[in-house]
Amino acid sequence: MSDKRLLPQLEPIRIDLDRIAGLLQQALDEVDEPLRAMLRGPLAGGKWLRSGLVVLVARMFAQPPEPFHRLAAAVETLHAATLIHDDLIDDALLRRGKKTLHAVWPVRVTVLAGDYLLARATRWVAELDLPQVMHAYGRALCMICEGEVRQTLVVKGIHRSRADYFRSIEAKSAALFAAVMEMAGILAVASERDVAALRTYGWELGVAYQIADDVLDLTEDAGRLGKPTGSDLRNGLVTLPVLHYLETTENDYPVRAVLTGKAEEVDVEAALLAIRESGAIAASLREASARADRAQRALEALPDNRARHTLHDLATVAIQRRH
Amino acid sequence: MSDKRLLPQLEPIRIDLDRIAGLLQQALDEVDEPLRAMLRGPLAGGKWLRSGLVVLVARMFAQPPEPFHRLAAAVETLHAATLIHDDLIDDALLRRGKKTLHAVWPVRVTVLAGDYLLARATRWVAELDLPQVMHAYGRALCMICEGEVRQTLVVKGIHRSRADYFRSIEAKSAALFAAVMEMAGILAVASERDVAALRTYGWELGVAYQIADDVLDLTEDAGRLGKPTGSDLRNGLVTLPVLHYLETTENDYPVRAVLTGKAEEVDVEAALLAIRESGAIAASLREASARADRAQRALEALPDNRARHTLHDLATVAIQRRH
Repeated sequence: MSDKRLLPQLEPIRIDLDRIAGLLQQALDEVDEPLRAMLRGPLAGGKWLRSGLVVLVARMFAQPPEPFHRLAAAVETLHAATLIHDDLIDDALLRRGKKTLHAVWPVRVTVLAGDYLLARATRWVAELDLPQVMHAYGRALCMICEGEVRQTLVVKGIHRSRADYFRSIEAKSAALFAAVMEMAGILAVASERDVAALRTYGWELGVAYQIADDVLDLTEDAGRLGKPTGSDLRNGLVTLPVLHYLETTENDYPVRAVLTGKAEEVDVEAALLAIRESGAIAASLREASARADRAQRALEALPDNRARHTLHDLATVAIQRRH
Repeated sequence: MSDKRLLPQLEPIRIDLDRIAGLLQQALDEVDEPLRAMLRGPLAGGKWLRSGLVVLVARMFAQPPEPFHRLAAAVETLHAATLIHDDLIDDALLRRGKKTLHAVWPVRVTVLAGDYLLARATRWVAELDLPQVMHAYGRALCMICEGEVRQTLVVKGIHRSRADYFRSIEAKSAALFAAVMEMAGILAVASERDVAALRTYGWELGVAYQIADDVLDLTEDAGRLGKPTGSDLRNGLVTLPVLHYLETTENDYPVRAVLTGKAEEVDVEAALLAIRESGAIAASLREASARADRAQRALEALPDNRARHTLHDLATVAIQRRH
């Protein structure tokens, strides 16, 4: 595993992350070209946050790490699958500063590459031989896909409500993080109460993380984002900071123009500046922070050890992070 | 369950198929519009062949039917998911005489609708609580997706070999039918030897079925097919009858012209006529028949009862069928 974007909090578990990277490499070796070449980028991993969560649960409950590595590989693979289909759906051409699959390959192959990763993730989860883990996985998969459909079809542009926004990020991020923690907890033979606490941590962390991500989309420069600043806004996707801005600003013309598709680049710049200079960013980060607090409170019921402290720190980092 | 296309051999298990249709309806009821409206057609079922196989295994081993209904619902759902993504990938606008999803909805929603069904199928399989069934399911899913990628990318047009063709239909049809029989066998607590026999039956049936399907694509009229005659040929997809034709015909210009995309409708008609009047159709059906025989021989090791006889008959019907 070699990734400069590894969160420093995860340094102590680098040995586990290396093993997980080895499993992902094995999955690549299983397939023929050109599929292998296509999947190398998506499976190269990003911040290893999801894997980190899984490994930390193993450590928290002093479990042998091997099955957790497979679960983490499944989770990274599932995450990569959703990114491939997401980028296709959003017509995003860049991710992490690199061309997305569908910017290079035909739509049909991009669809199938995502399908393949979904299948591979499912195989890994199946091989854990734990029906309860499979249940959690199946439920999460359904919730994520249904949420994506909703996000794609029903609510776009200026009419999006806070309820729509939260329903969407819950299905997209919170459901996956909650399922990751739940599956890891079941694998660690944690008590029902502990699994519920882990699930709550994952859910709230997922919401906090997604809000922070949506803030970064508006505030970071394109170089660090690896894609244009304000991609969501350009796509007509109203996120929490934009909702805050629209709720509190009387003369919201520049933002409204971008959302109704009547804007040129100069208007997008004006809209981004207007949002950044309003209180919308701070208000959104306060909400993210409140969710991170909830995640941290959920940890209090769990075994008090170093792994728990790292999970605590990760919830703080999730909302401070840079791409 | 109401479908005029039900195979007559499946009439005796109509009560089971009704239950399975009920489960598919429940899955529809779980989701919101517009997803529900989108999935109604794909989940309405076709010939109920895959469900029929699952139910017949339950009967062969005198098992209580309920878990088999869930497995069958999973299999029909998975099949529907692959059809949605297939039609998108092949840019097919009609299936079973009706508009395909992607003919009506944007690509992005069509991708997600397929993903959702894949997720829903996974959830059903997970709820059977049998790791071995999950393993078979995960492996089949990977094989199907990998085969699809190969079919889509690597071999198109005139350069396709018999080996390419068989690798593709094995991954596409044989792997799914084999997995269906294997999962049903495991669920029926059949012996390892019996599960292997069921798997072989499914594999050979899948190959026979797909060859017959590829023949029908060239011989049936559009009205019965529910899509234009020769769709594969028009898409540059070389199937077994076309391979036979190219192998045995010296002046293969009309077919070659269609496959290299240099043809108009009149040339397509000429190519179809040329293939039909050659020995290619009969030769392909002989290969299908040999595969159906192999499927039937695999049954000989299994309990000799009415369910087994129906499976025997289905292998014959698979290659005689009309759409």
